[in-house]
Amino acid sequence: MNIAIIGLGLIGGSLAKAFSEYTEHRVIGFDRDPSIVQRALELKSIHEIGDSSSLSQADVIYLCLYPESAIQFVKEHAHHIRPGCLVTDTCGIKTMVCGELTRLSQLHGFAFAGSHPMAGKERSGWNASEASLFNGASYIIVPCEASKLHVDTLKQLALEIGFGTIRITSAEEHDRMIAFTSQVPHVLACAYVMSPQCPNHKGFSAGSYRDVSRVAHINEVLWAELFLENREPLVEELNELIRHLAGIKNTIENNDRDALQALLRCGRQIKEALGE
Amino acid sequence: MNIAIIGLGLIGGSLAKAFSEYTEHRVIGFDRDPSIVQRALELKSIHEIGDSSSLSQADVIYLCLYPESAIQFVKEHAHHIRPGCLVTDTCGIKTMVCGELTRLSQLHGFAFAGSHPMAGKERSGWNASEASLFNGASYIIVPCEASKLHVDTLKQLALEIGFGTIRITSAEEHDRMIAFTSQVPHVLACAYVMSPQCPNHKGFSAGSYRDVSRVAHINEVLWAELFLENREPLVEELNELIRHLAGIKNTIENNDRDALQALLRCGRQIKEALGE
Repeated sequence: MNIAIIGLGLIGGSLAKAFSEYTEHRVIGFDRDPSIVQRALELKSIHEIGDSSSLSQADVIYLCLYPESAIQFVKEHAHHIRPGCLVTDTCGIKTMVCGELTRLSQLHGFAFAGSHPMAGKERSGWNASEASLFNGASYIIVPCEASKLHVDTLKQLALEIGFGTIRITSAEEHDRMIAFTSQVPHVLACAYVMSPQCPNHKGFSAGSYRDVSRVAHINEVLWAELFLENREPLVEELNELIRHLAGIKNTIENNDRDALQALLRCGRQIKEALGE
Repeated sequence: MNIAIIGLGLIGGSLAKAFSEYTEHRVIGFDRDPSIVQRALELKSIHEIGDSSSLSQADVIYLCLYPESAIQFVKEHAHHIRPGCLVTDTCGIKTMVCGELTRLSQLHGFAFAGSHPMAGKERSGWNASEASLFNGASYIIVPCEASKLHVDTLKQLALEIGFGTIRITSAEEHDRMIAFTSQVPHVLACAYVMSPQCPNHKGFSAGSYRDVSRVAHINEVLWAELFLENREPLVEELNELIRHLAGIKNTIENNDRDALQALLRCGRQIKEALGE
């Protein structure tokens, strides 16, 4: 298959490298930075630098751009996408993106299903990308109006490049879960390092500090967009977290050992019930 | 030297294994569970099962018990500790523990300095202990009234068993820093997994979820004791975190992209300034 990858950042670059390294598919790479597509071609991470004509030959298009740019790209290039082509995105939020892209797919006669590769890093851009990024990770598919055949194609491609689990869900469930599993930890990391003690942590810290603060190394433009487009579920999860933090804090303030132990035990039991 | 280790849990067990494996010192092991000392002896992790008479031969005693039990042990066995012996603890909080143990050391004529090996795991007990636990970790010493010679002995021993950094500090500074680097992440992990979304996270989660929730696998009896004995700095840090979380949440609720980006950028810059 001809696979077009739009945007060679961390996710797009890793998809290009993985498809080139692990499969026989032909990879066509697009990036607004000409030096990056050039470098990707030299490294054989893509077979061809994309243009309007190669876009129209694509069987599958992966949009690896920020949500608003992904929609913008399709609006601008819809007349070069051939009918029957399968378009998918890789955005971290789904309700808004899938709504817009489904509407555009129906207007222009191509197929669309949403995707979210559950893999990442605290660094971004082409230089951070690697073929092995998806090894064993979960690949979430939001079918929208796409046929079972198209969903199966996305599944198959995900397994070929190393994903370990496929999860099919609705845009709304995806966004509610992602608010908890991914967005809250990113908000948290930034809030955590704002403590006046943070700059002096060296020699006083170990794994716990490292783990909570890791993703404070955030791309604020991308994440602000993701947070704002998932406002309602994210605010709900943050309220939930603040409520539980305040609950534990109160037992400490009141020196209430039994109540504190009960709350900590509750945390442990949730973790244990998940077999973690 | 004769080294007595009191309590063969995660930290005491790892100290015993590290001293036996990496040094020539003679290790005397104590535990209230006879099957554990027996097992430690069979595995050659200790050279001798401790009793009152071997305690009085110790040159250095490591108290690897919960804070209140460590003080209780010294009160009960002080008459078996020879004058000149160097006693240290391994507790995660220092102000209360160091105050009490310094008082006891002056009363009974042995030396005392506090220690905090900055290493751990989300599992506890002898079975989780390992010789390599301290490799490259930080070892914090709170000298209290101990002489430079005694502090140097603790330093030297720490380096012999693999610690990478030695940090000398006061009990108060230690407790303020530990509230931030270690206690807040433990409170956080428990509060985080209390979200109603948590039980369904599988397939929707990756490194961020794993990192924040890891230490929810908490020993609630130990940590409740550590939190309550460090109430003031911990409550202060939790208030700080809740305040910053609420600040970021407000920018999301108000759809204020500039203010949100500014806060996230602030988090990133703090992390970058630390070279992390």
